[in-house]
Amino acid sequence: MAQSKYEHIQQEAYDANMQLPKLGLVLFTFGNVSAADSSLGVFAIKPSGVPYEELTPAKMVIVDFDGNTVEGNLRPSSDTKTHALLYKHWDKINGIAHTHSTYATAWAQAQTDIPIFGTTHADHNTVDIPCAPPMDDEMIQGDYEYQTGFQIMNCFKEKGLSYGEVEMILVGNHAPFTWGKSAAKAVYNSAVLESIAKMAYLTQSINANTLRLKDALIKKHYERKHGADSYYGQ
Amino acid sequence: MAQSKYEHIQQEAYDANMQLPKLGLVLFTFGNVSAADSSLGVFAIKPSGVPYEELTPAKMVIVDFDGNTVEGNLRPSSDTKTHALLYKHWDKINGIAHTHSTYATAWAQAQTDIPIFGTTHADHNTVDIPCAPPMDDEMIQGDYEYQTGFQIMNCFKEKGLSYGEVEMILVGNHAPFTWGKSAAKAVYNSAVLESIAKMAYLTQSINANTLRLKDALIKKHYERKHGADSYYGQ
Amino acid sequence: MAQSKYEHIQQEAYDANMQLPKLGLVLFTFGNVSAADSSLGVFAIKPSGVPYEELTPAKMVIVDFDGNTVEGNLRPSSDTKTHALLYKHWDKINGIAHTHSTYATAWAQAQTDIPIFGTTHADHNTVDIPCAPPMDDEMIQGDYEYQTGFQIMNCFKEKGLSYGEVEMILVGNHAPFTWGKSAAKAVYNSAVLESIAKMAYLTQSINANTLRLKDALIKKHYERKHGADSYYGQ
Amino acid sequence: MAQSKYEHIQQEAYDANMQLPKLGLVLFTFGNVSAADSSLGVFAIKPSGVPYEELTPAKMVIVDFDGNTVEGNLRPSSDTKTHALLYKHWDKINGIAHTHSTYATAWAQAQTDIPIFGTTHADHNTVDIPCAPPMDDEMIQGDYEYQTGFQIMNCFKEKGLSYGEVEMILVGNHAPFTWGKSAAKAVYNSAVLESIAKMAYLTQSINANTLRLKDALIKKHYERKHGADSYYGQ
Repeated sequence: MAQSKYEHIQQEAYDANMQLPKLGLVLFTFGNVSAADSSLGVFAIKPSGVPYEELTPAKMVIVDFDGNTVEGNLRPSSDTKTHALLYKHWDKINGIAHTHSTYATAWAQAQTDIPIFGTTHADHNTVDIPCAPPMDDEMIQGDYEYQTGFQIMNCFKEKGLSYGEVEMILVGNHAPFTWGKSAAKAVYNSAVLESIAKMAYLTQSINANTLRLKDALIKKHYERKHGADSYYGQ
Repeated sequence: MAQSKYEHIQQEAYDANMQLPKLGLVLFTFGNVSAADSSLGVFAIKPSGVPYEELTPAKMVIVDFDGNTVEGNLRPSSDTKTHALLYKHWDKINGIAHTHSTYATAWAQAQTDIPIFGTTHADHNTVDIPCAPPMDDEMIQGDYEYQTGFQIMNCFKEKGLSYGEVEMILVGNHAPFTWGKSAAKAVYNSAVLESIAKMAYLTQSINANTLRLKDALIKKHYERKHGADSYYGQ
Repeated sequence: MAQSKYEHIQQEAYDANMQLPKLGLVLFTFGNVSAADSSLGVFAIKPSGVPYEELTPAKMVIVDFDGNTVEGNLRPSSDTKTHALLYKHWDKINGIAHTHSTYATAWAQAQTDIPIFGTTHADHNTVDIPCAPPMDDEMIQGDYEYQTGFQIMNCFKEKGLSYGEVEMILVGNHAPFTWGKSAAKAVYNSAVLESIAKMAYLTQSINANTLRLKDALIKKHYERKHGADSYYGQ
Repeated sequence: MAQSKYEHIQQEAYDANMQLPKLGLVLFTFGNVSAADSSLGVFAIKPSGVPYEELTPAKMVIVDFDGNTVEGNLRPSSDTKTHALLYKHWDKINGIAHTHSTYATAWAQAQTDIPIFGTTHADHNTVDIPCAPPMDDEMIQGDYEYQTGFQIMNCFKEKGLSYGEVEMILVGNHAPFTWGKSAAKAVYNSAVLESIAKMAYLTQSINANTLRLKDALIKKHYERKHGADSYYGQ
């Protein structure tokens, strides 16, 4: 097979997908990562239902931002339209990851935002991790995976959040989506989210009246990471 | 030893049994998988009490659908009669798995159906995962493992469930049984059930008032997987 | 070094101790196993504070049933007197294991018997797993580890339990001890206990009103394993 | 590169840092360990943001007890000033470890001391594991990581604890710090703390009314370890 002009994002998507089982974020094929090249207007995504051990970079399917397959013989992941819509509207992201990781999915199923309880959370996000409410019935009956993209964007709009600041969401009843400047960063965010979700679960179990982090600490951590003089890194 | 005419199901049963420890579903020998050939009217099942590291395909015992050993020197699993009864009455299944996996067994011990809380569940089953109530005392005093098969079938009858749609059950006070078109699919279902059981446990712990998935979403996931235009696969 | 006449129990104790980290039952050196030869009136036990990766069979210390070191240059485990007392009084056991495994220790710390909730438990014990109440203050101030042996035996006497039937106990505030016909069986029992302890914890969390297993089922499982026609083995 | 006169502490810090992922105490780079040489008045610490698989002894940054970098091209961990302050004031410690290990961090987020529930805890500490209350707002707005050091020392002063006896603390809203006579001992304490934190969480979940260990047992375990005739070691 001749080299594809999409090989760079196929490789990036492949590498990122292979991180999911290594990080303990997926059972069987319950996850997918994509890598986009916005200059080409396409992304590479895991094919549908293929076990991780059988994946290769060349099997990554190339799809445009309207969800049409551009290159590849395999069917793209069933969540492809959600990825496409986010790339189309959030033009600064180049990677999206979706998993059914255990603790993050439990919060999504409980339809509850993850409260900001500590600095592990604040080092990555200075707000509660949002949980998008379940779709209206007409959205469900329509183009479901496409609507999942709108469900995510609508939640951000309603809560006044920026996708550049907050790179993760729980889709109510479903599971988490994360994103970032690269597919690798999106996967990193999936692992961080799972860790935060587990700690928050335990924190609430230890003390049901635990207060959210106080504002001065939230502000400090925000500045430490994003301010003009940012210096964070353990 | 001459080649057995049952070698294909011995190999299938062997491969499927060996998946149980890899998937973290068993401690020691607390599980068993069988593979049936309905045209021959027999199934191959793990011998009783043999550690996984000592299993070989040839050690799989061949048993008919009335529970009689047809071939093999080892004693078949103590759960053999449960397998036999299910194969006899549910003629479209070719594999059965039984484990004492941690979270699924906890729900079985709590004698509680696992509520459908999210899409991980709905992608595999569109009903709560049923928990069969404990046996009547006279059933227990009779042919116990045989009666476990009736306990499973009776629960499906009472709840109006189809074994072709719902491929898993919790036996109250005991542990899960799963099945499918092959032994590999039965094991896959055991792993999916354990994952769903853990997520549901956490979901309820996070929010004791979590509602079951709404009907429109259940219907969508059912159609996505089983409908004329099914397309599911991550 | 000339071959020791205790080499057979040193090897058995070594093999059994090395199973503890493999089964995930210990952190660092927080556990110990011994193997006894009642005809010689001695047992081999792990030396004190030696990491598992540095153990060898020859390092196992030989101790008599009054707790005196018979052979070996290293100090025996600080729990040695507890082992000695049990071997002295319970003459049919040849192996004892002590761990601080996570879930069993949590039940011991909570000073709560582990209720018999299911068949995983009933396949091994047909009573709740007993938790010995903490020692009286004068016992603590005396020969502490020796008294731990009496604490265990007193609990069995008060509850009317047989050490041949029930091969495990939780020492209140402390952690589990298990035993059996061999050191390997004692370790097997430690792993089974940890699994039962975790399942019981989850069962109670799912349904705080879960009932103990009903008598007919307990009786059936007891007979299945111990009766004249015992046949159990998965 | 010529051999550094700090090579011994670089090696010690490197070895200790590499233990963190092996012991399951860190995700990505969320932890750091330092090793001090008090005669030289410096310590070696993990560089900021470098993944564990890319660490080498030579990459460890040398910092003095006022937090100034003495040798090394990489930026030291963002928690360096906390380490520096503790070395400056607690002159008998030669190692400090900081992790965001799951259960210890959950207790820190819940702002709750870990109650002494059993002998696993008492073998290492005979008091509840202290949780330092969150900083005042003015401390946060100042030199944050430096103030974290004072937050730790102030908590010990207020509770009348000795850093030589109690080698671990939870920083409220944040995560644990541990220390000891060497970097290896500090890491050992991090692992012990995580284990104690998990057991205490489970203990409270099993029995919300669990009492703290009684005084006679606490005293016994203290003497067993620290008394003139100390003999502890499993």
